[in-house]
Amino acid sequence: MVNATTTLDGQPFSRAQFEALLKRRLFYTEAFEIYRTAPNFHGDNRGLFDYGPPGCALLNNIINEWRKHFVIEENMLEIDTTGITPEPVLKTSGHVDKFADWMCRDPVKGEYLRADHLVESVLETRLEKSRAATSDGKNKADKLDDATAKEFEEILAKIDNYGGPELRDLIKKYDIRNPNGNGEVQDPIAFNLMFQSTIGPSAASPVYLRPETAQGQFLNFRKLLDFCQGTMPFASACVGKSYRNEISPRSGLLRVREFLMAEIEHFVDPEGHKHHERFSEVADIELPFLEKDTQLSGKTTLTTVSIGKAVETKLVDNETLGYFLARVYLFLVKIGVDKTKLRFRQHLANEMAHYACDCWDAELLTSYGWIECVGCADRSAYDLSVHSNATGTPLVVKEARPEPLEITEWKASLEKKLVGPRFKKDAKKIEAAVASLGQDALGALADELASKAVITVPTAELADGKTSVELSSEICSIDKVTRVENTREYTPNVIEPSFGIGRILYSVLEHVFWHRRQDSARQVLSLPILVAPTKVLLVPLSNNPGFRPVVKSLASRLRALGIANNVDASGVSIGRRYARNDELGTPLGITVDFDTLSNGTITLRERDSTLQVRASEDEIIEAIKNLIAGTESWEQVSKRLPAFTGQGQDGQGQDGQGQDDRWDN
Amino acid sequence: MVNATTTLDGQPFSRAQFEALLKRRLFYTEAFEIYRTAPNFHGDNRGLFDYGPPGCALLNNIINEWRKHFVIEENMLEIDTTGITPEPVLKTSGHVDKFADWMCRDPVKGEYLRADHLVESVLETRLEKSRAATSDGKNKADKLDDATAKEFEEILAKIDNYGGPELRDLIKKYDIRNPNGNGEVQDPIAFNLMFQSTIGPSAASPVYLRPETAQGQFLNFRKLLDFCQGTMPFASACVGKSYRNEISPRSGLLRVREFLMAEIEHFVDPEGHKHHERFSEVADIELPFLEKDTQLSGKTTLTTVSIGKAVETKLVDNETLGYFLARVYLFLVKIGVDKTKLRFRQHLANEMAHYACDCWDAELLTSYGWIECVGCADRSAYDLSVHSNATGTPLVVKEARPEPLEITEWKASLEKKLVGPRFKKDAKKIEAAVASLGQDALGALADELASKAVITVPTAELADGKTSVELSSEICSIDKVTRVENTREYTPNVIEPSFGIGRILYSVLEHVFWHRRQDSARQVLSLPILVAPTKVLLVPLSNNPGFRPVVKSLASRLRALGIANNVDASGVSIGRRYARNDELGTPLGITVDFDTLSNGTITLRERDSTLQVRASEDEIIEAIKNLIAGTESWEQVSKRLPAFTGQGQDGQGQDGQGQDDRWDN
Repeated sequence: MVNATTTLDGQPFSRAQFEALLKRRLFYTEAFEIYRTAPNFHGDNRGLFDYGPPGCALLNNIINEWRKHFVIEENMLEIDTTGITPEPVLKTSGHVDKFADWMCRDPVKGEYLRADHLVESVLETRLEKSRAATSDGKNKADKLDDATAKEFEEILAKIDNYGGPELRDLIKKYDIRNPNGNGEVQDPIAFNLMFQSTIGPSAASPVYLRPETAQGQFLNFRKLLDFCQGTMPFASACVGKSYRNEISPRSGLLRVREFLMAEIEHFVDPEGHKHHERFSEVADIELPFLEKDTQLSGKTTLTTVSIGKAVETKLVDNETLGYFLARVYLFLVKIGVDKTKLRFRQHLANEMAHYACDCWDAELLTSYGWIECVGCADRSAYDLSVHSNATGTPLVVKEARPEPLEITEWKASLEKKLVGPRFKKDAKKIEAAVASLGQDALGALADELASKAVITVPTAELADGKTSVELSSEICSIDKVTRVENTREYTPNVIEPSFGIGRILYSVLEHVFWHRRQDSARQVLSLPILVAPTKVLLVPLSNNPGFRPVVKSLASRLRALGIANNVDASGVSIGRRYARNDELGTPLGITVDFDTLSNGTITLRERDSTLQVRASEDEIIEAIKNLIAGTESWEQVSKRLPAFTGQGQDGQGQDGQGQDDRWDN
Repeated sequence: MVNATTTLDGQPFSRAQFEALLKRRLFYTEAFEIYRTAPNFHGDNRGLFDYGPPGCALLNNIINEWRKHFVIEENMLEIDTTGITPEPVLKTSGHVDKFADWMCRDPVKGEYLRADHLVESVLETRLEKSRAATSDGKNKADKLDDATAKEFEEILAKIDNYGGPELRDLIKKYDIRNPNGNGEVQDPIAFNLMFQSTIGPSAASPVYLRPETAQGQFLNFRKLLDFCQGTMPFASACVGKSYRNEISPRSGLLRVREFLMAEIEHFVDPEGHKHHERFSEVADIELPFLEKDTQLSGKTTLTTVSIGKAVETKLVDNETLGYFLARVYLFLVKIGVDKTKLRFRQHLANEMAHYACDCWDAELLTSYGWIECVGCADRSAYDLSVHSNATGTPLVVKEARPEPLEITEWKASLEKKLVGPRFKKDAKKIEAAVASLGQDALGALADELASKAVITVPTAELADGKTSVELSSEICSIDKVTRVENTREYTPNVIEPSFGIGRILYSVLEHVFWHRRQDSARQVLSLPILVAPTKVLLVPLSNNPGFRPVVKSLASRLRALGIANNVDASGVSIGRRYARNDELGTPLGITVDFDTLSNGTITLRERDSTLQVRASEDEIIEAIKNLIAGTESWEQVSKRLPAFTGQGQDGQGQDGQGQDDRWDN
């Protein structure tokens, strides 16, 4: 049974130990920490984090790998769009009206609480107390009857699905109060999660910090289509910061107010079943699915099938969506995700965003539970359609039809010469009303016009207050006309894989954290060499001045090869220096010692096994290049080059159990 | 004479042509452009830009090179800090009070105008009209007398130095009005340039979008010092978006409201003349300086000397600042800056930011004039000191002294038992007043105390309204004491090279733009291969299906080597496809033709010369690798591999003048 509380080597996972390591090695830190105790510093300034040197390097390496894996591999059109976004754009997208959470105010404490979190925590507490109580003796009053307990459990299972009115009813029904002080809370109100500001000197123009990078991609659709010379399908991509003014930020990097996203918008023809040209390359990859139906039955059993099978059986709607699920899987595993702690969960109908028509989340298991790290949504034609309507800009693809299409349809015409003088100011509204009539309505009206020589057409409110107009056959005619269409015009659908990079980074760190079996204080981050912040540690055996030029020249050789390295010439023992770099996730270590000065050989240590080999500088550098390029594994290197087991290692095989002459220096 | 209006090959530079190319090839675009004409879209939403695919790739490549050149080369501690910044932080840094421009309102038009821009444009217009007029005949009234013309010229030369009151006086004195409508403008008021918002549900906590990344680095100083195990000097670095709510954004990418910065904060011991360990590596590099004194004498003559000489003669204050000037120079030239359009301008005393004590700008010559692209400031200990004072957190370096230091100094002591009862609520203020006395004051007071047995000490306002207190020798004593200091404590100084990446990118694009001599419509961006968005274009000669697998396999081979490439299999002629990629700055092109199918050879074309060579796939790929790594030049490649001059090129030598059989297909 996989468990978030189990590390790579099957030991218990301690979040306290893990977080202490991240803090000690400055992977990340709360932003503005030295201001926490300063006067006038408001407690609301939370949910903001800075990445320190190893965290920042890991972040950059993940992004670089993301670019290689997605953008370069698929020739996506990466763009860099603006974070500050004018209100009309986000009004159209729906965010101004719908991007909100429900919150309650406690008037006594002056606190704001996220309504669903409040209900969740109070009901969970009551259930826990009930379980701890016995029905007759200890804390008898806390014991819930079976029906109530079941009710609570059902509510908790559906907590994500409640809106403001339902949450208000639950709060009233179960007399839910602020756990801090037990005060009553006011009815939930919607709190928009976007940061608002104004742009320009007049302060008349409201803007928001974007909640996602997607909108900037949709707005550039037409230019991007031109850029790729009209070829469909194509994908755009964007890496950038997004923002959410969370009501109650928590869980460290998992719920923050400023975060890095990497989003892909793949534009595809809705006809043709959203086939994908390269689907066959991934069809055999098996993925663990948590299906909609399984969830509705209250279970979490995974269905593990190949993505080919999943698309064939319609578990996953189409090839394009399926292709991206498989590619996401390959990416996550490549950067260090433990594949036993990864699942694809299908969204239930009522939890899908307002724009989505099918959605799967790649979820990663952490000590906080299963965390949504990549959302893969089919956003259909929603976004392009609404922006097109709002701006009057056609956001469509025009394609030459292989064969011209003959279309016969009803067409209404107005006698312009008569319309203007007769209807005056109402003329435009009447023309618009006629133009908006559908084929069915036109068919019926044509019959009516033929029989009665007059029809009634619904309109916007006219000058006389009426909302319809009578049109005689003198002024209006409706005929069947045939036209030939040589081009086809359609609004593409959008498949969107959307990556929360901070969440992925945090989950990977949990997944690769463990400690050496003989000493829980000797902790290791087994980051893949691909994303490790530093690839090679360089350590001179001691501060003998003879080692310095060798170390300097090695560092410069590695740098010239673009290999991030770090010299640790501090006075502590080699064992300690290796241990520090195990915590930083540095996969390789080179020691320069007295043998180096006499015969030019150096040792190479591998982080996870702590095994070492010894060879010439050139051979070791060649091996490092191969290990980074992935053309050789450590196993192969350690078979090919002579093992080093003498004085100069931090342990033999089982680290720290051999004759470790440096560990305690 | 270097001129911004001259391209690389000495032709006239046309900004209209240049901007049309950037737009056509989607290097960047105004953000939200399709909303410009939408209802409710406010005209203030300007100064925001999106980078399209080639612009975004160029941006990423510049940043990657910046990381290699600075961060990796010098083992800097790169961090990624938060953009949203609480008010107290920016209050301390001085931005809340001082980061403002002066603006005037035209109450009739409802327009806001940046005051210095207003004065500048009106006086410039008057000078131009005067020059065009003759003193007797045509437009006689526009002619300025010599004294006034000289006055205007002097004002324009100093326009950056005026504050609000001076600008108000100029506006009054010369009756300067809004050129749009000729209305009078109101007095200038200070407009803070930061975007403001609030964080958290209570809306009680004001935050700003950061105006620079520097503050986030200063706030993490202590943790970074720990991270590098206390070793001084060290540098931090940060790449990220910053924001300025400009009053009137203009000049395209040069004055925008959201922009990418890359900043380095190099922390150095103020003692020891700010020596730099690697200064000797750059000492011989010659740089073009525009000195302070030259500017004060109204001239722009450059002094070109080696940075070694410049530091020796104190033209540049110290080695560390000098080292960075030279490194900045190397970086800019490497990514495509024309070294004849680059100068280092020293700041005048009155234009320096409030925190800086010496500052040099790397300025690049563009069609908009000389543009500040990199600021290199010595910020002294300003920032660490003010944040330390505001938070009570010591932001200092502690170093063991090589030898203990004996310090003898005056020390005042208060008889605590007596102070409390006697002064009650004032006691703390009096203790603070005594503790803040300097050595000189203490010396004088010691004498007074010895002679009069009572002293008067200035204080904050006390309960009785007085701002001093009398202390008798009974309650206060002042003695000479000797203590031994084993550690030295100091606040580091900061040298800050700060890069405006968007401005650099724009200037590079201007510098590398030219057109082929025989046809001004055939434009080229000669971007260095290092930063070019795409390295290799792949073109099949025609849409013969036999070419497809070859092109596909070539693309995948290049991709595996991490070489960004692009296939253009569109139906247009090869000449047109090459021309399109010349505009995208793609340095290399491979053609697959019928000879490829028979003998496996392909051609390689170089963008600037349009020359081609022909060889086997392996040989060509090897050459491409060398060209990208910089280990071989095109000149060497074209000597080594057989030239291709037959059917299949887009021109012979002088592009388009040979037997170009593809250009017009």
